[in-house]
Order: sequence, then structure tokens, then C-alpha cells
Amino acid sequence: MKKIYFDYAATAPTDPLVVEAMKPFFFEKFGNASSPHGVGREANKALEDARQKVATFIGAKSSEIIFTSGGTESNNHALFGAAENLKSRGNHIIVSRIEHHSVLEPAEYLEKNGFRITYLNADRYGMVDVEALQKIISEETIFVSVMHANNEIGTIQPIAEIGRLMKARGICFHVDAVQTVGHVPVDVGEMGVDLLSLSAHKFYGPKGMGALYIREGIRLEKFLFGGDQEKNRRASTQNVAGAVGLAKAIELASQNMETEVSEQIRLRQKLIDGILKSVSGARLNGHPEKRLPNNSHFAFEKVQGESLLMSLDMAGISASMGSACTSGALEPSHVLRATGLPDELAYGALRVTIGRWTKEEEIDYFLEQLPRIIKRLRD
Amino acid sequence: MKKIYFDYAATAPTDPLVVEAMKPFFFEKFGNASSPHGVGREANKALEDARQKVATFIGAKSSEIIFTSGGTESNNHALFGAAENLKSRGNHIIVSRIEHHSVLEPAEYLEKNGFRITYLNADRYGMVDVEALQKIISEETIFVSVMHANNEIGTIQPIAEIGRLMKARGICFHVDAVQTVGHVPVDVGEMGVDLLSLSAHKFYGPKGMGALYIREGIRLEKFLFGGDQEKNRRASTQNVAGAVGLAKAIELASQNMETEVSEQIRLRQKLIDGILKSVSGARLNGHPEKRLPNNSHFAFEKVQGESLLMSLDMAGISASMGSACTSGALEPSHVLRATGLPDELAYGALRVTIGRWTKEEEIDYFLEQLPRIIKRLRD
Repeated sequence: MKKIYFDYAATAPTDPLVVEAMKPFFFEKFGNASSPHGVGREANKALEDARQKVATFIGAKSSEIIFTSGGTESNNHALFGAAENLKSRGNHIIVSRIEHHSVLEPAEYLEKNGFRITYLNADRYGMVDVEALQKIISEETIFVSVMHANNEIGTIQPIAEIGRLMKARGICFHVDAVQTVGHVPVDVGEMGVDLLSLSAHKFYGPKGMGALYIREGIRLEKFLFGGDQEKNRRASTQNVAGAVGLAKAIELASQNMETEVSEQIRLRQKLIDGILKSVSGARLNGHPEKRLPNNSHFAFEKVQGESLLMSLDMAGISASMGSACTSGALEPSHVLRATGLPDELAYGALRVTIGRWTKEEEIDYFLEQLPRIIKRLRD
Repeated sequence: MKKIYFDYAATAPTDPLVVEAMKPFFFEKFGNASSPHGVGREANKALEDARQKVATFIGAKSSEIIFTSGGTESNNHALFGAAENLKSRGNHIIVSRIEHHSVLEPAEYLEKNGFRITYLNADRYGMVDVEALQKIISEETIFVSVMHANNEIGTIQPIAEIGRLMKARGICFHVDAVQTVGHVPVDVGEMGVDLLSLSAHKFYGPKGMGALYIREGIRLEKFLFGGDQEKNRRASTQNVAGAVGLAKAIELASQNMETEVSEQIRLRQKLIDGILKSVSGARLNGHPEKRLPNNSHFAFEKVQGESLLMSLDMAGISASMGSACTSGALEPSHVLRATGLPDELAYGALRVTIGRWTKEEEIDYFLEQLPRIIKRLRD
């Protein structure tokens, strides 16, 4: 049976070149980067080289990067850390309605603990409403979080525009860039962000590894307390192999991004056009152009998304309805609801995300299978 | 030049067999364990098999284990999570004075946020005072944290005795077992603990990977918020390769523990006896018998620990003064202070921790070098 992976947004394979780069840091160069002896210094050098690569890639200084255990920790740290540090200045926080749960849940927690949260709306394409944002901002607003690209429908947000607004108002601006770093250019200067989250496994790095960019001058309360690691900003023995893997993934991304992106857009567009042409009652979710190169997301009338996924799985195709993080949820996606998609359509959602190892014949096979499967499910 | 690693307590090399076990989960079986499709289910199966192995090893049920990013996260989660959940019952928390900073710092944070913290004393061997503990407990006491073995001086605490006390009083009992799991037997039932932290890299597993045992019936507030992973107890895409590595490290530990422990005790004892015999003004810290098999810890009169470490490093020997997590600190260790060791002796501290790849000739070389180095430093 064919095995086709169309769920790259959930997680990507770790590139074999990344694994190769990590290998020496398990046994030969295994040191604790905080140990002052030779074995530790060797590990520390690798860690700092990795940090420099991450920093350079997003236009930051090395001292502005801390390593984390992934996107969730980076997002949690940004929200909890900034709220704690800025609470004397105000208690108002704005997050978009389409954020990942690792932003929304901390926001809800803060709401129960004395903060006022406003949820920024998005339009039918999942594009946040910048005009509305300008109106909700008040003297009390201390923190705004808007993701760079949505993890379900792939819409890329006007971050630089929001960044300029936040800068003018002196509001701390966090961007969850978990879906974009390594896929589209990310430059913290051009985007005007103060805090930015990224995750290695979304662009062919290892799972359990991420980073948080903290602009110089921004003070964040610690999130993990204990040792003095990461210049006393994040306790825990550093995952050197993970950091080296993240840096290698970044190196590969920066070498290949242009070719990779144009090829993915070509394949993705073929897939979208094919489906919209061959399946009746199909709708593309997210923005038609301003979207992640590898993302397509559909809603099909009169189809249960879960049955569709199962049928695809049986045909050897791995796809998803939306976020893997909430795949057990029975409710339609909060993102689709925010775009105003009726629930009956949201139940028929399908996210197809391609990646580095996607071949054209896989797209062809999918375009051949999907209409049949949907027809069968509707019968 | 010789390269002798005597800092296994800071971190251990990842066993090549562990790396071998992890490998397939980077590329071939790279799925997101939360994805419902075949690729995800394959990853999830590996994750759950790993969880079962961790659970069995410490006498727990699989449902009582959550995976974390390491010992620091496990400790932070235990303290913050329990405090939040139990605050309606009381506000008094007891932690020993010799805990790792990843327990002490959260305790200090809680102290600033409405909790009353009592620090339990230890005797000259670093053994906590169980009688004193009985006296400090009040109706308000909701949580007690005592580490299984100290990371600096290696003293193993009477956990089962404390566990019985806590059970009788209905107090939530957390044990930081980062230094013991994989080194000495750990059984959560026999020890009577409610929460237990462990870390993979301390026993030849990968860095960035740990676990937290949460006894059935104990409710903990989440620490990482977001997706529904780990049965909604810890958000973040699961690090499947890391979990498989942790499980493999546990498998190796359970196969080899008896032989490994007796060999380490033999070598460690040779080292201790040799030093106490050949170096004047040398003192063994920690308990003479109730200590980690691989740990020795000394204080030398009229020697600066930092100079000693540098000289050892130049002779190819990696050792430490105490915790790598605070290796930049200028203060003497809080653990040594708690044992009543005078500061002038604490400044001359040396921790020598051996491990799986330690050879007898390395001990011999060390015993030959150390007296010379100390003599030179004292001249």
C-alpha cells in the first residue's frame, strides 16, 4: 500500500542530515554545557554556535535567544512571563481568536487571575482585524499576541503592520512563529516583534526543542526555575543535541528555502485546483494567496471529517482536520468558527500539508482518490 | 593527554544503545503521537510502550506517568501544580534545605505569592531531620518535598519513613529522584510518594527528557498549557524519540543495576579511601554509607576549589565542586552550608562522580595526580 504523508504541519520527519549533526552530542561530546571543565566547554561551544545560527536566521542577536522544549513552552513563557513582569503597568492583554491553544489557554488562565483578555477577531480568510486592534488598545494594554501564520488554515498575518502599531504604543508584542520559521522568511526587526516562538520539529528538526526570541531590553519572569542556565532566564540542563539539531534544520532551511517554497506552492496549488475542480461542495479555507506555502485546508459539504480521515488513512494517506494537539476534541475548530464557517461545514474539514519529501505523484494519487472517497461517503 | 570524566552526576553520556533505540523515531517513525492516522498511531504506540516501561521500573501504573522536558520541569510542575491545586486546603509547604534549586526556587516564588515555606534542616551528613519534620507539620501543611539523594554530596534520605508519615497525615509528598532513578532501586509504593521527578540524562538517556510520576487520585494544575497531550496534563507535542530513549536507558539500568552498583561502590570506595589516606586535611562530605554508589564528595583544607578544578582539568580530569546548574555561583554551596561545613572548607569542595564507563586505571591515575596537585596548590 502507498504511504503518503500529508500532515507536515502536525510534525515533520527529522531530516537525516539533522540527525547526523546531532549524533556526536549524544556520546562523544555529551557534556553539560554549564560544566566549566573541558567536556562542558566543548558542549557549551556547540550550544552557543547553535544559538548564533538561530539568531542570525531571524535577524536577532545571539543573546536574545533562549532554547526551550518547544513551541508550547515558548508560548507559555512569553504570556506568563510578560504578564508577570508587566502587571504593574496594566492588566489588559489582547490575543487573536485564532491563536494556537498554547497561547489561548495561558490567556484563559491569566483571565482567571486578574487580567482582562480581549480576543481579536479574524475575517472569513482568517486574517486578523488590524483596525479593530487599534480600537481595542487602551492605556491598560500591556501585551498583544498574534501568530505569524495559522496552524490550521495557514493564513499569514500582517505582522509587520501590527508590529509598527505596537512599537508606537510601547506594547509588548509576541508572535507565535511556530508554523513559519524555516518555511517563510522571518525577521524580528522587520516584523517589529518583542517576543517570538519557534519549534524545531515543524521544519525538520527534532521534537522537544524550540526557542524563544526575547528582544534586548524586554524583561520576562522565568518560566522554569532552578539553575542559572540560559543566562538565568530558563533553568534546566541544556539539550545540546537538540540545539545542534535545531541549528542544522535552520541551516538546511536557509539553503533551500527559495526552491523549496516555490516547489511547494506549485504542488499545493495543483492540489487545491484539482480538488476544487473535481469535488462538488468543496471550499478552500484560509487566504487564497497569503498562506503558508505547504498548507491547504478545505471544508466539504455533507462529509464527516473524521470518516474522511479514516478513509484516507485506509488508502494510505495521512492528513488531518486541523491541529493534532486537539485531535481528540469533538467541537469544531475554534479557528474555523472564528472565520465564520458554519459548524456543519467545519465538521467536514480537511487539512493537507505537504513538505520536503512530497512527490508530485503523491499529489496525483490524492487527486485520484479523494473525489472517489468523498463520493462514497456522501452516498 | 588522558581524558577522564568524573562528573557523571552533572550529566552522563547517552548510551550508544539508547541512541540506537531512538534513531528510528527521527525519520522512519517520526509521527506526532497525537495524530489519529497510522503514522501518528505508530508513534503513539512507541510512546505508550515507553511510558509502560518507565512506570513498571518505579512500581507505578502507566497512567501515572507524564513525560516532561527534564528534572527541572518535573520539579517545577510538582511544586507549582500541587500548590495551586491544594491552596484551598492550606498554605504551608515544607522543603528540605538541601533540595536542588529547581525545588528551592519554585518554593521561594510561592513564598512571595502567599505560601508559607519551612526549610527542613539536615545533619552533618546531609541527612534530613525526620523528627523535626514531624514537629513542623501543621494542619495547614499541604505539601512536602524531600529529594531521594542529594545531587552534591550523594546522601540518600529515609524517604519511606517520611512517606509513611505523610500518608498518615494526608499530605502530598514529592520526591526529586533525579539522582537515584537508574542508579538505586526506586519504588513509588514502598517509598510512599505521591509525586516523583526523574531525568533521563542522569542515567545514560538523552538530555531534554524526563518524567513526573503522579499518583492516581492526585490532581495537579497543568504547568504547560495548550494541547490535550498526556491526557490533558502536559501540553506540547510529545518527544517520542526522547521517550523511547528514556525507556531504553531504563531497560539498560534494570538489566545492569546490581553489577553496576557493586562495581561502582568498589571503585568509589577505593577512591575515597585513597584520598583520605594520601591527602592531609581532606574530609568526606555526605553520609559514609547511605550515599549514591557513584558519588564521592570532599572538602580540602587550604585549597580553592576552582583552582583545584582547573588543575584537574589541565591534567585531563573533569570533576566539579557541586552542581553544574550553579557552577557560575560565587557563594559556597547551600548544601554544604546546611551540613554545617564552615565556608572556608566549602570553598575547597570537590565532587567526583563515576559511571558506566569508568575504568579502574582512571581511579589510579586520579589517586596519583590529586595529592600532587593539592600539594602544589597549597605551596
